[in-house]
Amino acid sequence: MPLKTVTIVGVGLIGGSFALALRKAGFEGRIVGVSRPATIAEAMELGVIDEGAPLEEALPASDLIYLAQPILRILEQLPEVARLARPGSLVTDAGSTKKAIVERAEELFAGSEARFLGGHPMAGKEGRGVAIAEAELLRGAVYAITPDARHAGDERVDELVGWLRRIGCKPLAMTPDEHDRVTAMTSHVPQMVSTALAAAVWESLENPTQLQVAGGGLRDMTRLAGSSYEIWEGILKTNAAAISEGLRRVAAELERLGKDPEDPAVAERFAVAQTLHKKIRQS
Amino acid sequence: MPLKTVTIVGVGLIGGSFALALRKAGFEGRIVGVSRPATIAEAMELGVIDEGAPLEEALPASDLIYLAQPILRILEQLPEVARLARPGSLVTDAGSTKKAIVERAEELFAGSEARFLGGHPMAGKEGRGVAIAEAELLRGAVYAITPDARHAGDERVDELVGWLRRIGCKPLAMTPDEHDRVTAMTSHVPQMVSTALAAAVWESLENPTQLQVAGGGLRDMTRLAGSSYEIWEGILKTNAAAISEGLRRVAAELERLGKDPEDPAVAERFAVAQTLHKKIRQS
Repeated sequence: MPLKTVTIVGVGLIGGSFALALRKAGFEGRIVGVSRPATIAEAMELGVIDEGAPLEEALPASDLIYLAQPILRILEQLPEVARLARPGSLVTDAGSTKKAIVERAEELFAGSEARFLGGHPMAGKEGRGVAIAEAELLRGAVYAITPDARHAGDERVDELVGWLRRIGCKPLAMTPDEHDRVTAMTSHVPQMVSTALAAAVWESLENPTQLQVAGGGLRDMTRLAGSSYEIWEGILKTNAAAISEGLRRVAAELERLGKDPEDPAVAERFAVAQTLHKKIRQS
Repeated sequence: MPLKTVTIVGVGLIGGSFALALRKAGFEGRIVGVSRPATIAEAMELGVIDEGAPLEEALPASDLIYLAQPILRILEQLPEVARLARPGSLVTDAGSTKKAIVERAEELFAGSEARFLGGHPMAGKEGRGVAIAEAELLRGAVYAITPDARHAGDERVDELVGWLRRIGCKPLAMTPDEHDRVTAMTSHVPQMVSTALAAAVWESLENPTQLQVAGGGLRDMTRLAGSSYEIWEGILKTNAAAISEGLRRVAAELERLGKDPEDPAVAERFAVAQTLHKKIRQS
């Protein structure tokens, strides 16, 4: 059953970019947006969506429901989404953590004839909002999805994956648990480390002019520190254990590195770190 | 007394770039290099120096001696440099830490009629060696110098500072202690944090393909982790206490951030970090 109507709930950077990419890849059906009225007006003017509608109208009429709000908002609204999604439809999300959302969805969709599939496009850029959405944002990005045995052979899932490929994503199946453990280390912990470094540097300065005596390294290492708590709140609250564990690992490394520069362990840790550096540049 | 002969000891990225900048800024005297024969040949071919000479020949004939080797090599060779520098000459260095070198120089130059002034150009780029030296590398860079009461009114110091300005640097006077405390936080600790993060991420992976699930943040945060221990050894050994203290501060921040995402302290630390982020972007 080909998609005819897609609803984007939360028409921001990710939701808007998915809509634009879908259209660019040849999707000919309707794209409906659910967002605040000002956002709907802006998204229609930008050609991101065809029309806006309230959740209660949009969802029962959709083949694919794409949840692109902040994590905590998705969790809050999920019971209503499960109630409104029509039999045969597929609901997916773009939240940055997967365990909390997928576990909640499993409960809520247990008796439903709608299907839920967790997803997470590994793409983004600085800023937010539909104004900076772009059709090419997701091109080349790994797109984590979390299917399990119940999704096997489900043609709704196959169709979504087909569209993900057509818009240039690389779908990658993993469990919610693996997703959250890996992204803790590759994304959430780096954010916290940048924030920790920036806060420590700021409070160590006797006066801000001392920042003149800094190179490009500090600039790189504190780029992420520009992010606000509001952006990260949902991630921190839904992946706390894995992030906490990752931060303990980094703190243990800092202790090893700071103890004694003559200790051979220091040179050894530099070598391990260089291995990761090289792997990232190869990938 | 205007400079006639300048000797660069260690004709690498920094020493070579200083020589090229000096020439470009109108210096008409001789530029002599002290380095390994292969480096001298390369530097002459690139037009970085006029000639090469052994230390024993070059130093007694120089008005300005510019030490641009790694820190530990500068420390090792400093007694010989003090012995060979002729009365009336100025010796300066470009080492990344200042306390160890300046303190050693104070002892060695105590009875000398040559003068030593510590220096540190806050510039660099990836890679090393004279092949990538460039006249513009130091332009716009803060150039830390560590004069004290004995340097006041010394025309050799004034002349060096004049050349630093002509090549586009911003000379900034500070004590060796302040220099090392500030660069610990703005340069050395960021390096160690990048290395710590990269090592922790690498060892947390079950397999390297999990790096597919990473965004640009990890790439930024591990750029410095590509540096080798050999490059950092001298810095770590000559600024161990300040670096260790800085790492403890970062570890304390990590602990605060990792404890409980509901704790208002977490949002507060994000806000402090954002302050630094903003200051760096303004400066």
